[in-house]
Amino acid sequence: MFLKSISIYNFSGNASREINISLTFFFQHLQQQLQAQPGSLPFDEILYCNIGNPQSLGQKPITFFREVLALCDHPKLLDREEIKSLFSADAIARAKKILALIPGRATGAYSHSQGIKGLRDEIAAGIASRDGFPANADDIFLTNGASPGVHMMMQLLIRNNRDGIMCPIPQYSLYSASLALHGGALVPYYLDESSGWGLEISELKSQLEDARSKGINVRALVVINPGNPTGQVLDEQQQYELVKFCKDEGLVLLADEVYQENIYVTNKKINSFKKIARSMGYNEEDLQLVSFHSVSKGYYGECGKRGGYMEVTGFSAPVREQLYKIASVNLCSNITGQILSSLIMNPPKAGDGSYDLYMEEKDGILKSLARRAKAMESAFNSIDGITCNKTEGAMYLFPQIYLPHKAIEAARAVNKAPDAFYALRLLDTTGIVVTPGSGFGQVAGTWHVRCTILPQEEKIPSMIARFREFHEEFMAQYRD
Amino acid sequence: MFLKSISIYNFSGNASREINISLTFFFQHLQQQLQAQPGSLPFDEILYCNIGNPQSLGQKPITFFREVLALCDHPKLLDREEIKSLFSADAIARAKKILALIPGRATGAYSHSQGIKGLRDEIAAGIASRDGFPANADDIFLTNGASPGVHMMMQLLIRNNRDGIMCPIPQYSLYSASLALHGGALVPYYLDESSGWGLEISELKSQLEDARSKGINVRALVVINPGNPTGQVLDEQQQYELVKFCKDEGLVLLADEVYQENIYVTNKKINSFKKIARSMGYNEEDLQLVSFHSVSKGYYGECGKRGGYMEVTGFSAPVREQLYKIASVNLCSNITGQILSSLIMNPPKAGDGSYDLYMEEKDGILKSLARRAKAMESAFNSIDGITCNKTEGAMYLFPQIYLPHKAIEAARAVNKAPDAFYALRLLDTTGIVVTPGSGFGQVAGTWHVRCTILPQEEKIPSMIARFREFHEEFMAQYRD
Repeated sequence: MFLKSISIYNFSGNASREINISLTFFFQHLQQQLQAQPGSLPFDEILYCNIGNPQSLGQKPITFFREVLALCDHPKLLDREEIKSLFSADAIARAKKILALIPGRATGAYSHSQGIKGLRDEIAAGIASRDGFPANADDIFLTNGASPGVHMMMQLLIRNNRDGIMCPIPQYSLYSASLALHGGALVPYYLDESSGWGLEISELKSQLEDARSKGINVRALVVINPGNPTGQVLDEQQQYELVKFCKDEGLVLLADEVYQENIYVTNKKINSFKKIARSMGYNEEDLQLVSFHSVSKGYYGECGKRGGYMEVTGFSAPVREQLYKIASVNLCSNITGQILSSLIMNPPKAGDGSYDLYMEEKDGILKSLARRAKAMESAFNSIDGITCNKTEGAMYLFPQIYLPHKAIEAARAVNKAPDAFYALRLLDTTGIVVTPGSGFGQVAGTWHVRCTILPQEEKIPSMIARFREFHEEFMAQYRD
Repeated sequence: MFLKSISIYNFSGNASREINISLTFFFQHLQQQLQAQPGSLPFDEILYCNIGNPQSLGQKPITFFREVLALCDHPKLLDREEIKSLFSADAIARAKKILALIPGRATGAYSHSQGIKGLRDEIAAGIASRDGFPANADDIFLTNGASPGVHMMMQLLIRNNRDGIMCPIPQYSLYSASLALHGGALVPYYLDESSGWGLEISELKSQLEDARSKGINVRALVVINPGNPTGQVLDEQQQYELVKFCKDEGLVLLADEVYQENIYVTNKKINSFKKIARSMGYNEEDLQLVSFHSVSKGYYGECGKRGGYMEVTGFSAPVREQLYKIASVNLCSNITGQILSSLIMNPPKAGDGSYDLYMEEKDGILKSLARRAKAMESAFNSIDGITCNKTEGAMYLFPQIYLPHKAIEAARAVNKAPDAFYALRLLDTTGIVVTPGSGFGQVAGTWHVRCTILPQEEKIPSMIARFREFHEEFMAQYRD
């Protein structure tokens, strides 16, 4: 009786989320089949290129970070002499310092809903050191990864379905999902694929005017730098223009900067939007700016720890109080994630005992990611019917797939987006999981997939070979 | 300019949450003053009796749990001989077992959005062992503490403001806050203070009929056992009747069982609602039942780890798929919390190396909590103008404060609920933080505060003396 009432249950999702979910159920099913009946599929393993989850593909955690976490989890160890042979001296010192920052050294207690004050001080110091401009612990909200921070800001900003947020297209679907969840309007601005996913202020202006003319109250603009799924890095001039645009138009700037450590080109560097704004002389009273960061990305890739923070500047005390209320609904973020957030913003420094190992691990990961980005981009561009912009940063390629009309018709016939049709066939044939471009938004009539650069280097040649073989057979089957 | 637009920001909170928040800002302010100017207040420390946060008041974590967490955080330790003198053998074995359950041993990877399958198997085994009825890993959703699970269920159940959820009054304000957040109607049922916060089926029936007559579509019933803020433990007969009521009325039963390990009386025992339902012969097709659990309470009190789960039974596959979609919005819960959830459901057993220490720590904490509950209940009952029911379980007392009319008028004059007025004066005078009853709901014209039983035993006599002195002065000031 009650079980039949499925359709009346509520899910405020959106189409892009639906696509990813159906893919998820499919690969979970395949994974189970591979385990239950090895050899029953045309591939031996599923290669997860659909999600930025480095450690699931073999990336090792940074030793120093894990040493500190272990000591903070079990502080009794700090009383024992034997740890000196098991842990680096600076990890021991750091764990002691962190425990001293936590009231009662209680890593098992709820903290302040913004996070432990002492850890927020550490993070603020890390931000100040990164940017060369001051940061304030009261502006930091520690969160279980970046996603809850984004949801909190959407909850704060969206009052009804006439409130709009400008988002890049293509965009990481967290934003469209969160807007759907909170009932706001997504105001798109398109990144230009032909100029390496370039961002044009004229496009922002025209989309903003268009939305306003439709009665949408545009409240904020999301920028993702480096880009997800697009992998581009903004140059400084674009950042200046974007900041000025937000200031002039009175838009809150929501800066997704979770890939700030992931940059693979030498001709650009990452500047936080806060640094850009402050270097333009814009202060608290000029611009409302939120920067999201996470322990899940960078060279650390600690997705499972669910740590992150947002730095919220330019908001008045009463608005911050509202945000605090929203944060307090789930009491606080997890303390392990809080500690790890303080560590990524204050890693070992030259002269520290762990520094050499830390740098070796960090450089090893980042250089390998750069090689993988280059190898996969070249490979995609060498395949007929695929073009791929350079991945300058983040963890993704977003190649365009030129699908024949017959393939598009075949997809429509089974009620699927053509790129989802392609991605499902790819998975079914090769075990490679990529995410269809429809999940991120794209110019009408173009089709893409997002593919991470995370497979281990030794697996890339065979992966590319499988991809190429699949693609050629697919194109042969559906050639117009 | 933009900074002035505060009032148009959105916060879907409710009055009870507001009361707690204003208290929070007040004690944070006092805490800062105590640090900045010691001796400037009539007390030397703030005693937090407002929140069930045991480790913040000095409770020590269970050694075995922390040993396993430390080893899982830094698995390289498992290759080292020296750990044998630092960790118990069964903690080492357990860490190895857990790592083997995690794909790639990657504690830093996102997991399945319901949580790591192997850990869900462990939890299901723990539930089956507790209840004597089978449990299924597919029914388990691991969450960052119990709160996100409650929000997920509310999001699933509430479609519009005509959908209602029955909640006990008084109730832990998570439920009213979550209902406000998701736009549903709270349908109250009152616990009877005069019979030890008893639950009467006749009250449930009459409130349900009343709500239905007003056009509310009542979809679920929340029960909190042991009670929060009320501390009562339901007897088996009441549980049978409640389960039958939900089955007969087609209500989803949302069972908050986070205090299942906290019981301080010998004449009652905790039965999970699943055990009760199954022992009545009610299976999946008869009742939709959700049980919430958390690592934050019990004898472990690991609030800061943000671990927990919900066991969701009686829902069809398509509804569970909707729930999975909601769970996937924030990717997954933190892995440390997931591991800890598996540990609390499978603690050391007789014969394990850690068993004796584990039992000593567990018994020590639970016996001390029982003594504290008794001591504080007796003390409250010895104060003129206060009556207090027995705390049979959970972590709270909910004494009634008989406030004179003059005090009520004085509170109204400053636009405060009378019990909030009392609680703020208590804090200001003594440094003791309790939560006003208005935050939980109470029979109109009665006034309560919620006070945890968590202050360390040696502090209770002086705390009670301070409380008594304050109360007598307050009553003298406002005597009618």
